[in-house]
Amino acid sequence: MPDRKQHPIEPWRLRETELDLDNLAQAESLFALSNGHIGLRGNLDEGEPYAIPGTYLNSFYEKRPLPYAEAGYGYPESGQTLVDVTNGKLIRLLVDDSPFDIRYGELHSHERSLDFRSGILQRDADWTSPGGKRIRVRSRRLVSLTQRAVAAIEYVVEAVDRPARFVVQSELVANETQPPLSDDPRVASVLEQPLEPVSHDASPKSCILIHRTKRSEQLMAAGMTHQVEAPDRARVDIDIREDWARTTVICDLQPGESLRVVKLLAYGWSSLRSETAIGDQVAAALASAEFCGWEGLVELQQEYLDDFWDAADVEVQGHAELQQAVRFALFHVLQAGARAERRAIPSKGLTGAGYDGHTFWDTEGFVLPVLIHTVPDAAADALKWRHSILELAKDRAAVLGLRGAAFPWRTIRGQECSGYWPAGTAAFHINADIAEAVSRYHAATGDEQFLVDYGLELLVETARLWMSLGHHDRHGRWHLPGVTGPDEYSAVADDNVFTNLMAAKNLKAAAEVAVRHPAKARSLGVDAEEEAAWRDAAAAVHIPYDEELKVHPQSDGFTGYAEWDFEAARGKYPLMLHAPYFELYRKQVVKQADLTLAMYWCGDAFTPEQKARNFDYYERLTVRDSSLSACVQAVMAAEVGHLDLAYDYAYEAALIDLHNLHHNTRDGLHMASLAGAWTALVAGFGGLRDREGCICFNPALPAGLTGLAFSIRWHGVRLRVDIQPDEVTYAVHDGPDASLTLNHAGEEITVKAGEPVTRALTKREPLLPRPTQPPGREPMSALGNNRTE
Amino acid sequence: MPDRKQHPIEPWRLRETELDLDNLAQAESLFALSNGHIGLRGNLDEGEPYAIPGTYLNSFYEKRPLPYAEAGYGYPESGQTLVDVTNGKLIRLLVDDSPFDIRYGELHSHERSLDFRSGILQRDADWTSPGGKRIRVRSRRLVSLTQRAVAAIEYVVEAVDRPARFVVQSELVANETQPPLSDDPRVASVLEQPLEPVSHDASPKSCILIHRTKRSEQLMAAGMTHQVEAPDRARVDIDIREDWARTTVICDLQPGESLRVVKLLAYGWSSLRSETAIGDQVAAALASAEFCGWEGLVELQQEYLDDFWDAADVEVQGHAELQQAVRFALFHVLQAGARAERRAIPSKGLTGAGYDGHTFWDTEGFVLPVLIHTVPDAAADALKWRHSILELAKDRAAVLGLRGAAFPWRTIRGQECSGYWPAGTAAFHINADIAEAVSRYHAATGDEQFLVDYGLELLVETARLWMSLGHHDRHGRWHLPGVTGPDEYSAVADDNVFTNLMAAKNLKAAAEVAVRHPAKARSLGVDAEEEAAWRDAAAAVHIPYDEELKVHPQSDGFTGYAEWDFEAARGKYPLMLHAPYFELYRKQVVKQADLTLAMYWCGDAFTPEQKARNFDYYERLTVRDSSLSACVQAVMAAEVGHLDLAYDYAYEAALIDLHNLHHNTRDGLHMASLAGAWTALVAGFGGLRDREGCICFNPALPAGLTGLAFSIRWHGVRLRVDIQPDEVTYAVHDGPDASLTLNHAGEEITVKAGEPVTRALTKREPLLPRPTQPPGREPMSALGNNRTE
Repeated sequence: MPDRKQHPIEPWRLRETELDLDNLAQAESLFALSNGHIGLRGNLDEGEPYAIPGTYLNSFYEKRPLPYAEAGYGYPESGQTLVDVTNGKLIRLLVDDSPFDIRYGELHSHERSLDFRSGILQRDADWTSPGGKRIRVRSRRLVSLTQRAVAAIEYVVEAVDRPARFVVQSELVANETQPPLSDDPRVASVLEQPLEPVSHDASPKSCILIHRTKRSEQLMAAGMTHQVEAPDRARVDIDIREDWARTTVICDLQPGESLRVVKLLAYGWSSLRSETAIGDQVAAALASAEFCGWEGLVELQQEYLDDFWDAADVEVQGHAELQQAVRFALFHVLQAGARAERRAIPSKGLTGAGYDGHTFWDTEGFVLPVLIHTVPDAAADALKWRHSILELAKDRAAVLGLRGAAFPWRTIRGQECSGYWPAGTAAFHINADIAEAVSRYHAATGDEQFLVDYGLELLVETARLWMSLGHHDRHGRWHLPGVTGPDEYSAVADDNVFTNLMAAKNLKAAAEVAVRHPAKARSLGVDAEEEAAWRDAAAAVHIPYDEELKVHPQSDGFTGYAEWDFEAARGKYPLMLHAPYFELYRKQVVKQADLTLAMYWCGDAFTPEQKARNFDYYERLTVRDSSLSACVQAVMAAEVGHLDLAYDYAYEAALIDLHNLHHNTRDGLHMASLAGAWTALVAGFGGLRDREGCICFNPALPAGLTGLAFSIRWHGVRLRVDIQPDEVTYAVHDGPDASLTLNHAGEEITVKAGEPVTRALTKREPLLPRPTQPPGREPMSALGNNRTE
Repeated sequence: MPDRKQHPIEPWRLRETELDLDNLAQAESLFALSNGHIGLRGNLDEGEPYAIPGTYLNSFYEKRPLPYAEAGYGYPESGQTLVDVTNGKLIRLLVDDSPFDIRYGELHSHERSLDFRSGILQRDADWTSPGGKRIRVRSRRLVSLTQRAVAAIEYVVEAVDRPARFVVQSELVANETQPPLSDDPRVASVLEQPLEPVSHDASPKSCILIHRTKRSEQLMAAGMTHQVEAPDRARVDIDIREDWARTTVICDLQPGESLRVVKLLAYGWSSLRSETAIGDQVAAALASAEFCGWEGLVELQQEYLDDFWDAADVEVQGHAELQQAVRFALFHVLQAGARAERRAIPSKGLTGAGYDGHTFWDTEGFVLPVLIHTVPDAAADALKWRHSILELAKDRAAVLGLRGAAFPWRTIRGQECSGYWPAGTAAFHINADIAEAVSRYHAATGDEQFLVDYGLELLVETARLWMSLGHHDRHGRWHLPGVTGPDEYSAVADDNVFTNLMAAKNLKAAAEVAVRHPAKARSLGVDAEEEAAWRDAAAAVHIPYDEELKVHPQSDGFTGYAEWDFEAARGKYPLMLHAPYFELYRKQVVKQADLTLAMYWCGDAFTPEQKARNFDYYERLTVRDSSLSACVQAVMAAEVGHLDLAYDYAYEAALIDLHNLHHNTRDGLHMASLAGAWTALVAGFGGLRDREGCICFNPALPAGLTGLAFSIRWHGVRLRVDIQPDEVTYAVHDGPDASLTLNHAGEEITVKAGEPVTRALTKREPLLPRPTQPPGREPMSALGNNRTE
């Protein structure tokens, strides 16, 4: 639990009123700025103290060998690790003889604040140097959402009580020293000196450093230019070497006077383009940024975010902390996806290099459902990135002896980078998750051209993979043995219900879209026989069911295993750091929602009673050692009527990083869980589902929430859903002709612009009492932690 | 198929009449000498050409880090690799100016022969040097079975047609250059310069080099001394450095004259004893060897082997190649186990460093059953070694969160060295295999004291492991989910029939022996409740059965999997080098006998009809990519009446290395398969089983074999079983009072010394026709390859 005196709850910003040196790394992640293209960790301007320095460019990686004690066929030999590139955030300050370093002198106040509506990180420091000169420093930093190659810093320093000489050194530094990292498999590999200098160029207007990675041979350029305002004479010098560039500004300030330096940064990188092309690209971006100026960039940022919030805001009434957290979450999800533009959206966004900066199914399963309804173009771009690596996925399938496409479990640029196949290659469900995202994107946008250009091919190649993975038994049932579902504490199991249902959905979707676009389908080699085979397999899919317990086993035989000894496991979480895989795999213990996720994503396959019983059963076994779980449990808890439990899980999903619940926010934010906070509220309490191309709601609020309102996009129309304890109002707020048909608790309703529709909520009664969780793994109480009062 | 002109078939020796430089590595393994304590590969005296140099000391290893692309809890961090130690085999020769190197000059003839009755490797070369001097070289080499620290070489060189000067350099060389090895996971890691010099000492009588391994910090000493016989004056010099010692003998020989050098070698090593202690130990061994002299060592070797063959020989009538092969096999099994003496018996013996020189379940499952009936003291020693690592096994179980002892899947000194847990840690059956070997040893010897001192504790701690691995389901059936059975193409499966039956056997044996030795049991903390729990779990063990197919699934659900595409796999063997594990695991494809092994070792658990159907079913799926399979298939083929198929498998098991059937004899001989050749004949055609402490036979011969006779030991009595096509004669050949009760085809018979008993054979009719194997994986035809005629 963070000290809320240091982090006051405010609806539209995250503020830190005191610098906490013990939690620097967490703050660096929380205050990270990104546009999905460039990411800057919230390191201090002056570079030190730091926990993990971080400047990231989407998909800019280095290769590293993947070693095995005993290698096997098809194991990837080479991994990919996100590189901490040339740091452009650095602005050092010398006050007379003393460097501005908050560990020395006297720090009177230090405040940082990240504003979700302006997209600006502001810092205010009031400090007296060891030499006795009191100064104020204000810096404001942004990574432009409108000019994707550009970041900017406004740095203002003021002499408070005595005149002093100020030396501002604004730098670009390549190959920063990295802190040693732990053995935790969830953190990144450390790369020493990953960048080789290629060239450097300084002009009176700008400095540009060009580097190359050694093994992956990617080129990158970082450039900076400055605008200086001083009350009197200021001298500006530029110095440059292979691995650094420095602009030095010197001036004398009288009390009350201030020096303002605006630093404009630009980055460019490529594995194809030449050194000169990349250098020119960065020079052009700098010129364009200069043309805007700081004020222009700030204004564009504000406009972009106004438009975003207008169609994406979630208003939570009755829980101020949850309100703040869900906006924090949405802001970071936007930052991760806004301008990724046909590159991957990593599981940490660009806020840290945890998990080596890799992209998993987090993107399609958790982040895209939010973007689809808020920034649909960004969702389309993410799926186009998947399409762009389709050839690699087909090659991988061929290596594995399979047909179609096998997308990588974890990757930066498309090649499989998973070094442990039972929780990598065997987790084939990622392919169905991608297919599902295609279907969802189409359902929400009606973008038929996307299906023709990208979607159908993704559906077809993943369907082909499933056909080569599955088989019919002698009774005609279709099985998928030996695969790993979402729950990573159960691997290589037979007939995982989630995977089987999702594979069937994938096959059905491929057949349907192929029938709708026959010409494109034929060009992909799909004929009527193949379509029929997909439909037949989907219809014959085997879903194991335990008749005695009246629950679905997560996979075949699961409910017959011994239960994990949860009492003995107290204090030993995450379990994977305290128990061997084989023990986890052979017991009833669930890392993260698996069967529960199947009930959410494939809700039609379960009766309400089955949902209630299954939810109850798996709650007792689920330890939530993964950040992909609480939000799913929130949605299903709400559906089966445990609204208070759903509230707790929504709170957990939203607060995962603000409360550092997984103890690794230092390595980057958990994008899936942050996106899941939105899902918990919108799909959980709003009851949002899309079924057969129709958007459905069935809202219900937990005791304690006095209201919940959210906006989403559906086929180009903005819909606002305003839930009160007893009723809900649907309103369209686009042009006068806009209208939208939705399903409210089974009733079809058409909502037109200017004609909101209000309906009473249906009362929800759970079939079973509120279930318990493994001891010590209960979610925090959202009500108990409510500080709204 | 080897060229039999170069390898004539002879009953009591392996002879090579021409040097084949392309198959040098295979010959080095075939001609390896060992006593289980020291192993010398069959490298040429002069050191070059060589394929893989090899001098091994049992359990003398170096540590190496085990790397993981993604590490997990409980993964071993450090591996162990057998070290190629100081080479004492080297005797170089200079004839005038020309080094004796068979790649130069003219080689008139070159013959090597390994005699199974004398235990001596003899080499005869007739060579003319590039300088035109014709010489004859005869060397004879032995590793003493009676003096375990000693090896010896008699080296005789003769001038044939012209006088010449001969310089013989006899050496000790540490840190020999190693050849680069392949990526095949079955070979060893290469260690560069593994030995650090500690000290060296040369006296007129001997040279001793002492070295230490860098990381495992084991000390070793190698010593040599010489006896020289020359017709005239011979000069002897000694030179020594850190990493080598050299004794140089120079003399002139006239045509017909010869120089004879006897080289006596001794080795000592320890991880505990001091440098001086080890040096003294080697000096003492050398002194003792000198006291015997070459002739004395030869004589003792002969006596030892006469005694061995008297109680162990297998006579095959009607197939000369099989006759030779089974004696070759027995000789090497003896070499591997004779003097291992509380150290491990590696899967390659000491004939090569394949699999890093590790010991697996091969020892208890395949090698010990032979030693138990032929050299029971060696079998006891091997089990005492297991007892000596019991504390390590208990520590390992504790790390894994289990009770009792978890023996390592692969190791040299006792620590788990497996870097791939699904075919390592998860293969818990090794613990039941060890327990089974304890029971078998006791059954064959009646050695009750062994049970008290060692056996019971092994049974108890393995039983405790099983109790912590298994659980009762809600119907009271006892299950073992998520473990790996013998078949390594099916891992981490539920209720593997072999493992479940063997675990139950282990539990029953522990309870029985504990009841018989209550004082010892109590001292191990065993009470009546624990004994009862063992019996109850064993009685409740769940054995899956497929009612529709009327076969046992190898593990739960196995018979519902898709069948491997064997047609497409033609030419892609072993499959593990061509297909990913997950594909192998999720299909019906069997690497090696698993359910078939269960039917052999736990025969009482199956009806004859089940055995026939199961055998038929699994034959079609078994590809024999493991060398642990053919011998088991031979035994069960014979039992269900496919005597001709059993004959083929017996042939394959026996010829595995002589024909290099697995293409890796270069890395060492396959001890389990060589032992299996004995098992295929004795348990297959002899029908040997031990049931409830009684020895049973039920012989039957395949068409083509006109007779089979073998001797075994049972409770200190030597029994000779002489099988003819229609009858069998049982004879006891020990002292006049010796007698033995056995079971012949259901009839209890007591055989007394001097009173052989003859019985007619029962005719065996198979229930089903001879089954087929996967295409391309049929065994070679024993009849078709019979060159007896």
